[in-house]
Amino acid sequence: MTTTTNTGNFSGRAQQVQSSFIRDILKAAGQSNIISFAGGLPEPSLFPAQQLAKSAYRVLMNNGQEALQYTNTEGYLPLRKFIAERYLRQQKIPIEPEQVLITSGSQQALDLISKLFLDPGDEIIVERPSYLGAIQCFSQYSPLIQEVDLKEEGPDGNQLKEWMKTSSPKFFYTIPNYQNPTGRRHSIASRHDTASIIAESDAFIIEDDPYGEIRFEGETFPTLHSLLPEQTILLGTFSKMVAPGLRIGWVIATPDIIRRLTILKQASDLHSSHLDQQIIYDYLTHYDLEEHLQSIRMLYSKRRNTMLAAMREYFPESVKYQIPEGGMFFWLEFGKQFKTMELLEKSMKEGIIFVPGETFYASNPVLNTARFNFSNTEEDKMKAALSKLGALIKKMEQPQIATVKWWPLP
Amino acid sequence: MTTTTNTGNFSGRAQQVQSSFIRDILKAAGQSNIISFAGGLPEPSLFPAQQLAKSAYRVLMNNGQEALQYTNTEGYLPLRKFIAERYLRQQKIPIEPEQVLITSGSQQALDLISKLFLDPGDEIIVERPSYLGAIQCFSQYSPLIQEVDLKEEGPDGNQLKEWMKTSSPKFFYTIPNYQNPTGRRHSIASRHDTASIIAESDAFIIEDDPYGEIRFEGETFPTLHSLLPEQTILLGTFSKMVAPGLRIGWVIATPDIIRRLTILKQASDLHSSHLDQQIIYDYLTHYDLEEHLQSIRMLYSKRRNTMLAAMREYFPESVKYQIPEGGMFFWLEFGKQFKTMELLEKSMKEGIIFVPGETFYASNPVLNTARFNFSNTEEDKMKAALSKLGALIKKMEQPQIATVKWWPLP
Repeated sequence: MTTTTNTGNFSGRAQQVQSSFIRDILKAAGQSNIISFAGGLPEPSLFPAQQLAKSAYRVLMNNGQEALQYTNTEGYLPLRKFIAERYLRQQKIPIEPEQVLITSGSQQALDLISKLFLDPGDEIIVERPSYLGAIQCFSQYSPLIQEVDLKEEGPDGNQLKEWMKTSSPKFFYTIPNYQNPTGRRHSIASRHDTASIIAESDAFIIEDDPYGEIRFEGETFPTLHSLLPEQTILLGTFSKMVAPGLRIGWVIATPDIIRRLTILKQASDLHSSHLDQQIIYDYLTHYDLEEHLQSIRMLYSKRRNTMLAAMREYFPESVKYQIPEGGMFFWLEFGKQFKTMELLEKSMKEGIIFVPGETFYASNPVLNTARFNFSNTEEDKMKAALSKLGALIKKMEQPQIATVKWWPLP
Repeated sequence: MTTTTNTGNFSGRAQQVQSSFIRDILKAAGQSNIISFAGGLPEPSLFPAQQLAKSAYRVLMNNGQEALQYTNTEGYLPLRKFIAERYLRQQKIPIEPEQVLITSGSQQALDLISKLFLDPGDEIIVERPSYLGAIQCFSQYSPLIQEVDLKEEGPDGNQLKEWMKTSSPKFFYTIPNYQNPTGRRHSIASRHDTASIIAESDAFIIEDDPYGEIRFEGETFPTLHSLLPEQTILLGTFSKMVAPGLRIGWVIATPDIIRRLTILKQASDLHSSHLDQQIIYDYLTHYDLEEHLQSIRMLYSKRRNTMLAAMREYFPESVKYQIPEGGMFFWLEFGKQFKTMELLEKSMKEGIIFVPGETFYASNPVLNTARFNFSNTEEDKMKAALSKLGALIKKMEQPQIATVKWWPLP
């Protein structure tokens, strides 16, 4: 069997979308005894596997004929109600079940939103840097991607205002809580600022919130959705709260938007796994999610602290970072001339991987940045690996002694 | 909260895709005590719920940390191997695991294939009539859809040849076994004919095969994929063999096509439910799928026979149909002037639903056809409902007595 195919046959789209560099690294990681700061993987020992085993058994024995059958595209109604009521408790904003669409993870939500909004050449705005998987997903629909710098307190309001004046973006994609890749959280002032800028336009906010519950310090901040409900599409997921292998996420939006997304989801996969929806609903109603979240927060904040202490001990002062107050990532900035891709090449030889920051920019990648995940590595291994990395960084930073060649005088 | 949104914001695509009429009917069906011949639902009492309960429990207790974690986009390797080896046993054609991509049901496979091949205006060919969900899915990508008549023995070879001469379709979408909606199976001669016509072009065959295993009579016919492996993309699913609620299907193609589809799937949902993939793999390796298939075939063929007998008894001779040798559907043709939508309106009042055939045409719908599902209705209810329907049909066929108004002579 030959492995080449006439590429003239394929769509323009198929030629724009590239395989994720991160996932390619992760694949390599799976193959050997590598220490990985590369993924965005939750710690698997925290998965409530035994409780989910009981839930799965209960669902299949008591309600198997229903849970194994086709269901409606919107998702399992009791689960949609649970999600709506949890937002009401937490955000004090009434959300009806018909404002909830169950998706196959937030990634599918991004795909459906792209399908709903994007014709080729349409403008959209993303944070700089932003989640690579979102950029990949949007790229399938050939938009013009504009960027606003993500500062420590949130997206640059002046840049956002300027883009809204000079163009007509369909949406602004943002991760306000413990962003991937920077770990940054938008301040309350920034949230109000963003909402008021978008309110003056026809655009939507796509508020991706996978990490909001993984909060180590401080108070919960209001969602952008609570500030501008008519123009915000809020994405949530059980991937980081319970387990990603189930692929159960959701979209919160107006009933009109949900209805439109539902039609597109119907054409895309009919519905998300009915069994998984019922398993997770059984889990949520039989066990204590809030207690489970506490155990995640405790372990991840401990690992964040360990990574912080190790970087302080082993990394040179030229490496800058902000301390993330939640989520899964540190974002590192090295000296101006530093190339983290070179560091990765060297560290891979020592069995250590991470993601160079350049992969997180929609354009003009910055070469001296990196994303380090702290949720998925045991503390002993973390310290040992960061010690080795620190040595590599210091070595790379040593001024190169120029080898000067001498010519005989003419 | 208002429920209107400026439609100017949405993509052209979003305005082309309509909600499925069938799924809208099915939603109505779920709400009351209706007898439904409308869906394509498997009989839920045949779902191996207890065995799947044990599989789920085993997977989560023994291997939960892995099954609940993110995984690679291609799918769970042991499951891909199982699928590849089963084809080898059945079709005597070697298929490697890297030729298998796990998808969230065949519907997602159709979406990924559309993403891979279709730019707006690209030509594709479908059978006339064809699966509504496929037409809906393709419509998201604005192709020019051409049709070839599906005859009793397969697609009209002359029409297919003519389209291949006069246009450059990206693919020909076909369901060779017990097609949805007609229940027809392509003869062996028709399969060779199709393969040789496509072989002379750059086009692909998209061979959708959800019903091939639901065979009541006769031998297995070779897949189009076995006749033209380089240019055929074969879709399979566990939806009808095990259970649709799990949403586990697959694509068989060249490693090159699989790699391209994998990149698009990564951008679309990262991967299908890891848990469900492991549950179904545990089921397949602990229990006897072939025995289970026998029980499905026995029940469905019994119901097919019951529906056939009831139609012979209650329906007028004007109603024509072919006896399906497998699958889930009868395809009915009424008298030329008959409108099955009117029959549906009347039958809904009696609590009986089915799908008018007009929904299965990409263009120029034929109004006197209907699809009747026989897999999902108990035999007593089936007979009672078909008796009522027969009476309604006979009444509709009675010649209307013209009400003639008399005018006084001038």
